[in-house]
Amino acid sequence: MLMEECGVFGVFLKNEANVSPYIVEGLIALQHRGQEAAGIACSNFKKIELYKKSGTVSQVFNDKVLNEITGTLGIGHVRYSTKGGSSADNAQPFLIKYKNEYFSIAHNGQIENAEKVKRELEKNGTIFMTGSDTELILHILVGKLKTPPHKWTLEEISSIIFENIKPSYSLLILFEDRIIAIRDKKGYRPLSIYEDEYGHYISSEDCGFKFLNPNYKKIREIKPGEAVEISKYEVKSIQHETNEYKHCFFEHVYFARPDSNVFGRNVHLMRERLGQQCAIENPVDADIVVPVMESGFSGALGYSKISGIPIELGLMKNRYIGRTFINPGQTNREIGVRRKLSPIIQVIKNKRIVLIDDSIVRGTTMKRIVDMLKEAGANEVHVRIASPAVKDTCSWGVDIPNKKDLIAQKNIEDIKSEIHADSLGYVSLNGVKEILGSEYKNYCFFCFGGK
Amino acid sequence: MLMEECGVFGVFLKNEANVSPYIVEGLIALQHRGQEAAGIACSNFKKIELYKKSGTVSQVFNDKVLNEITGTLGIGHVRYSTKGGSSADNAQPFLIKYKNEYFSIAHNGQIENAEKVKRELEKNGTIFMTGSDTELILHILVGKLKTPPHKWTLEEISSIIFENIKPSYSLLILFEDRIIAIRDKKGYRPLSIYEDEYGHYISSEDCGFKFLNPNYKKIREIKPGEAVEISKYEVKSIQHETNEYKHCFFEHVYFARPDSNVFGRNVHLMRERLGQQCAIENPVDADIVVPVMESGFSGALGYSKISGIPIELGLMKNRYIGRTFINPGQTNREIGVRRKLSPIIQVIKNKRIVLIDDSIVRGTTMKRIVDMLKEAGANEVHVRIASPAVKDTCSWGVDIPNKKDLIAQKNIEDIKSEIHADSLGYVSLNGVKEILGSEYKNYCFFCFGGK
Amino acid sequence: MLMEECGVFGVFLKNEANVSPYIVEGLIALQHRGQEAAGIACSNFKKIELYKKSGTVSQVFNDKVLNEITGTLGIGHVRYSTKGGSSADNAQPFLIKYKNEYFSIAHNGQIENAEKVKRELEKNGTIFMTGSDTELILHILVGKLKTPPHKWTLEEISSIIFENIKPSYSLLILFEDRIIAIRDKKGYRPLSIYEDEYGHYISSEDCGFKFLNPNYKKIREIKPGEAVEISKYEVKSIQHETNEYKHCFFEHVYFARPDSNVFGRNVHLMRERLGQQCAIENPVDADIVVPVMESGFSGALGYSKISGIPIELGLMKNRYIGRTFINPGQTNREIGVRRKLSPIIQVIKNKRIVLIDDSIVRGTTMKRIVDMLKEAGANEVHVRIASPAVKDTCSWGVDIPNKKDLIAQKNIEDIKSEIHADSLGYVSLNGVKEILGSEYKNYCFFCFGGK
Amino acid sequence: MLMEECGVFGVFLKNEANVSPYIVEGLIALQHRGQEAAGIACSNFKKIELYKKSGTVSQVFNDKVLNEITGTLGIGHVRYSTKGGSSADNAQPFLIKYKNEYFSIAHNGQIENAEKVKRELEKNGTIFMTGSDTELILHILVGKLKTPPHKWTLEEISSIIFENIKPSYSLLILFEDRIIAIRDKKGYRPLSIYEDEYGHYISSEDCGFKFLNPNYKKIREIKPGEAVEISKYEVKSIQHETNEYKHCFFEHVYFARPDSNVFGRNVHLMRERLGQQCAIENPVDADIVVPVMESGFSGALGYSKISGIPIELGLMKNRYIGRTFINPGQTNREIGVRRKLSPIIQVIKNKRIVLIDDSIVRGTTMKRIVDMLKEAGANEVHVRIASPAVKDTCSWGVDIPNKKDLIAQKNIEDIKSEIHADSLGYVSLNGVKEILGSEYKNYCFFCFGGK
Repeated sequence: MLMEECGVFGVFLKNEANVSPYIVEGLIALQHRGQEAAGIACSNFKKIELYKKSGTVSQVFNDKVLNEITGTLGIGHVRYSTKGGSSADNAQPFLIKYKNEYFSIAHNGQIENAEKVKRELEKNGTIFMTGSDTELILHILVGKLKTPPHKWTLEEISSIIFENIKPSYSLLILFEDRIIAIRDKKGYRPLSIYEDEYGHYISSEDCGFKFLNPNYKKIREIKPGEAVEISKYEVKSIQHETNEYKHCFFEHVYFARPDSNVFGRNVHLMRERLGQQCAIENPVDADIVVPVMESGFSGALGYSKISGIPIELGLMKNRYIGRTFINPGQTNREIGVRRKLSPIIQVIKNKRIVLIDDSIVRGTTMKRIVDMLKEAGANEVHVRIASPAVKDTCSWGVDIPNKKDLIAQKNIEDIKSEIHADSLGYVSLNGVKEILGSEYKNYCFFCFGGK
Repeated sequence: MLMEECGVFGVFLKNEANVSPYIVEGLIALQHRGQEAAGIACSNFKKIELYKKSGTVSQVFNDKVLNEITGTLGIGHVRYSTKGGSSADNAQPFLIKYKNEYFSIAHNGQIENAEKVKRELEKNGTIFMTGSDTELILHILVGKLKTPPHKWTLEEISSIIFENIKPSYSLLILFEDRIIAIRDKKGYRPLSIYEDEYGHYISSEDCGFKFLNPNYKKIREIKPGEAVEISKYEVKSIQHETNEYKHCFFEHVYFARPDSNVFGRNVHLMRERLGQQCAIENPVDADIVVPVMESGFSGALGYSKISGIPIELGLMKNRYIGRTFINPGQTNREIGVRRKLSPIIQVIKNKRIVLIDDSIVRGTTMKRIVDMLKEAGANEVHVRIASPAVKDTCSWGVDIPNKKDLIAQKNIEDIKSEIHADSLGYVSLNGVKEILGSEYKNYCFFCFGGK
Repeated sequence: MLMEECGVFGVFLKNEANVSPYIVEGLIALQHRGQEAAGIACSNFKKIELYKKSGTVSQVFNDKVLNEITGTLGIGHVRYSTKGGSSADNAQPFLIKYKNEYFSIAHNGQIENAEKVKRELEKNGTIFMTGSDTELILHILVGKLKTPPHKWTLEEISSIIFENIKPSYSLLILFEDRIIAIRDKKGYRPLSIYEDEYGHYISSEDCGFKFLNPNYKKIREIKPGEAVEISKYEVKSIQHETNEYKHCFFEHVYFARPDSNVFGRNVHLMRERLGQQCAIENPVDADIVVPVMESGFSGALGYSKISGIPIELGLMKNRYIGRTFINPGQTNREIGVRRKLSPIIQVIKNKRIVLIDDSIVRGTTMKRIVDMLKEAGANEVHVRIASPAVKDTCSWGVDIPNKKDLIAQKNIEDIKSEIHADSLGYVSLNGVKEILGSEYKNYCFFCFGGK
Repeated sequence: MLMEECGVFGVFLKNEANVSPYIVEGLIALQHRGQEAAGIACSNFKKIELYKKSGTVSQVFNDKVLNEITGTLGIGHVRYSTKGGSSADNAQPFLIKYKNEYFSIAHNGQIENAEKVKRELEKNGTIFMTGSDTELILHILVGKLKTPPHKWTLEEISSIIFENIKPSYSLLILFEDRIIAIRDKKGYRPLSIYEDEYGHYISSEDCGFKFLNPNYKKIREIKPGEAVEISKYEVKSIQHETNEYKHCFFEHVYFARPDSNVFGRNVHLMRERLGQQCAIENPVDADIVVPVMESGFSGALGYSKISGIPIELGLMKNRYIGRTFINPGQTNREIGVRRKLSPIIQVIKNKRIVLIDDSIVRGTTMKRIVDMLKEAGANEVHVRIASPAVKDTCSWGVDIPNKKDLIAQKNIEDIKSEIHADSLGYVSLNGVKEILGSEYKNYCFFCFGGK
């Protein structure tokens, strides 16, 4: 039933070019938000056509497909891997025909009141053809607006969604002649809009515009509670009233691409700043700072700056991995993490190491990394996490395992022992408050044990 | 006719496990040496079986294949992408049946006197079924040793190869009950051997042993002019006389994996040291050091250390790229390099940047990176290359384009202008001599304009 | 919106074996009813799992899939190729979760009042996630029965369907612990049930039971208006009142497999009998009877028996065809039909031929066959069709082109000239009446111009 | 080491069209001669390019490939499935570069003295890169003709091959500007040539020309011992002396397509005539003649004509089969043959059946068919084979199992019992002599126990 950590991308071109390659390029830039499935829906003002399949964007699309699915406006989606369920059917966008008109929807987020809305709808005999939260939005829209879709106004659509669907959602709706983008009132997930001489573009993260333009002029975030409509060729926006923001701090810590700007801040710089804060809160006497590449790199830069301890490439990441071919049963050796991360002995040997990563969830991988560094000759391994400890699950789209599997349910000493580290330090929530200042209240820290 | 920049991996197990998953794991660790094709040949002491195909290791192999191609000893090969020719036929290893006995061969390198040997053999009516240099070695061996392969001794095989085949080659020959490894007398390409309680392993680079063992005990290089034979269960070695080494310096600069040790030195540390030397030779007043990720990272660490200019993540690499979907004809915008590398504006803007990469070949990509940084707001871009300039082609296995296409055929000022840089600096050959000391004479610097 | 000419197969096993391979074998036997897509849904009494994809049964399924989709009861579907629409989404069975319970449906037929029912449902805000008629049945069921699916009785389900859904349909519904089979009151499409010591089996055609048993004991047709429920381990049946049958005569002429028995008659024998009737109605002085293999073979046997003219292999069918590689533009020659059917010159030359096929739709192919026979030396070609002329379209599941494209809209003389035949004869509807006797009134002859 | 039962096709176009689609169409017509692999080699007068892969012609080729492998002249090959060996490497044509010139070869047949020639060549240090007999021909040619290939004359090539290579072979050699076709002096395998206004075509069987032309004008067999050269744009032919023909009678009985003419006779008519002879030699009192479709159809027509017993469709062949999904271990039922052949009960029940097939090899399948007919209610099953009994293996290209596995090693009574038949009859070699008359001596009957 989860539909989290996805990415959406929409384009409305002003010229005669085919829109589908643009959407695909945007989805490639958002690929880090979901690798399970990808899809696009395009309209030529008369008909909407859809293509979606399991796989990464490069696996799903090719020139043949892009020559068949053509149009002037369109939306796309990358889907995060979830367990169970018939995944091909849950791939997005969805395409619906109502009263002889097509419309299509793509959604990033997880609806808090999904089960409640569903039970309500089922009472009236509504059936659900997919396991996706997104289908709810369709039923709500159609149930309230029984006119043909081309008559539905931006006001009506956004009001109905804001009234009935609880966050989180950053969603795109494609009609035959317009695109509507809606971001929930709490602003859980990012959503940005960009215009250039060739068209309008909407993207989950603004890194999606990079292939068009390396600087960030004319890019702005769609605001929490804002609904935008792009038609031929104007942009209309409605701002609904909202009283409290709930930006997902995990977007900064883990999801978003380092070169993206989310919630008004660059992600890499935020991670670097968290690394600095971690150094302030958890100083240690050591020889080198070693990032767990690539996730720990920004934080390590920050830790190094504050501590003065030089950053070194102590752990190399193997670009080519895929699944393991040697069955653990075939040998007495654990080889999983060794294929992905390689210690550089000459850097590590006899050194006291500050090992930096962005987060620890279960702790299994971290223990293996610490072991590997020690096997490779490290004298001490001090683990530093450039974020607060993950202590709880999430109902707004972050795929966190059961609370009892979270290592941060234990106390620091126990975690330290369990991961074989010589010391361990996180960033405190107070530390984060220092970084964010007055904006701290606009973020959700639920999974970090915040209120 | 080129067969360069490949990787080989061999295993002889002491226990009952199936050898093929081990070879495949080794090839994954060597994947950076060639992504066009992969193959393995395994022997169960009675028969050798072969499987090879175009694609990366993960694409070529799956459990079904590994359950069919089984044995106790075997060899594998990853092949670098070359233009033209019927590539599937040139994939390695080759499997040959001579006098009712099978043997198989896998080769990393390029034979200097290939054309001459080929013309000689053709005079006697030899035909070549592939476009690969490697086939020559087979014809020479069989032409000189007309007895069945199981009678061929390590002495005979290595003497014939050393007498007739000019470097470069690091090669593996699999017979039904033994593996022979031979490294040419100049030592152009690396080759290492490792033993543990489960078996013997041979790999182009010692990073191939990492999945077995993260520390480097019991690993040694096979020496130039050395021939090694692994049988049940002993290792025999013959050292042929050799008067001059010619280690390929490009292995340090570009080919080898940073965590590998080639020619007795760790590759990452060598690159870092080259970055230091570059800083010594080419100082500049700047605000940040920005590596072209990932190739320039080691050099950038070195440059930063010497110069005191902090290293920053100014250019992010997109992990998910593949081919471009937008045809340049469809738009007036150049998007290629922008998909792969993303500037982080907040890091770059109004900064004077030292941009570090490992090498420049044609200069086209470097120009686009410089342009992109300036578009993103950089005040100055000073390009620093952590190696000497590439000025010539190679006959021993490095795939360098025509001499006239090499930008370093021009003078520094012209190159600087062409790539739109504010300044440009390489490491001098003298600088390299300073790093290598007395070992300098053991390296080949032909492509760097060395003697 | 069409969903015709499909096939369904269901199995409820009594023993511990996995049901999915049985369904797949059944679908292979029904493959002639649809080659576009195939799917199965299986229940292990706790959960229903689904797998479906575009392609033939052999392309869609493999051992890996069958080991993942397991259970004790299940249903399957093969889908006929239709134009337009997002075909993967329309593949069946459909899997629905309602009130936390799964159920699945597979349908063969076309719902006469689909558009009307759809408009009605849309008025109440129902949305349709697929383009398939089958979805309607789901909405109707859920709309009327708002309790959880396990409470729905055979009586309720069948009554609701019979009251609201107009034929044609032979459908299977899979619940977690039972299978329900329903055949419409007119009996348009066939549906049979079979029991042996291992389980119960339901199939569109009884040829689906052949892999289990080559004789026809314990096989019976599910009757028009009958609803059957198979649970652990009993079969319950309800017969709803019905006043008029409408068996599709095209099942005999074209759809069904010759070894099947539909509507109480063997298909091959019916086609042979039609060939006999054609000979009675359309005698001609000729040398040999040549069937258009394989569709005309049964009819040709009948024509030969009555006329005394020997049957000969004058036209061979090439088993290996697929699409044409030579573009007609590349050459001045028409090659399509020549690849599929080959005249045997020595059989044909200087002969007066009676050419037998099962039907003519547009007439294009028949013209080419006649031309080819004449080019190969035939003196005369007398076309005889072992069925009445196809003069109209169908709303109950037969995919017939627009009325104006049907060659039988013209008179016999014009058709004869257009297909270049020396004479032409069909079976008359009166002839069919003679064959069927009192059962004639139980069949639909709408597309043959019948009432 | 076997390379039998393949098919070859060559085209030299006179106009500007691309030759590769023509070769592919020809290979589709020859697909029955081999389904394991397919390949083509095409020349544009400057360079020869090759494409080959495992799979059927339709699986191997698509428009993309045919747009890449282009030219004016070319050859193709379909390969029969053999066990063991690295099949992809053995796919044909082979492409060789000798003295900087390309040439390519495709071969149908099996070389009788292959092992002897191989041992001879190995003595001189020749190595074999494939397991194919065809490679021998290359080594012999190059070993004798050390000049560049463009200097090799038709006289030289054919003389060397006829002197050194023992039959069987029907082979095509493609040079950059000509095609050479050679048929062995015994004429074991068929080979035909055809010319029309667009080009010259060579095919293993003349059915390969059907897509171009349905009548047989301007088609002739290449004679045993004949060598033909097609260049721009003339055909040159050399007839070498030959003293004895050895046409493979199995081509008539089993290999060739019914509409082909091999050795001057139509295959279908020969099979029908064998069926007649079988009726003359083995009369029986019965109700119906039932062919094992499709292989027994021609023979059954013949048996029916002589015996006066009507032919009936008692066994239907299922077009869609592929591999079995139900593991025999999963059930106590044997289902293999039941999926492929379906009895039509109403035709068979209570009947005395003459069951006709083209041959029996091991007898396992025939026993199952007889059992199935009896299970379906047949009173008697009299097996009649429209060819002599297969009693021996073959060294010239027919893939017959070990002598001890041939059921015809037993006497008629034992075979009859083993296959559960009520009676059994073959055609005698004397009967074949009666059919062939004076040409009998020109055929090889080795596998039928002939001299």
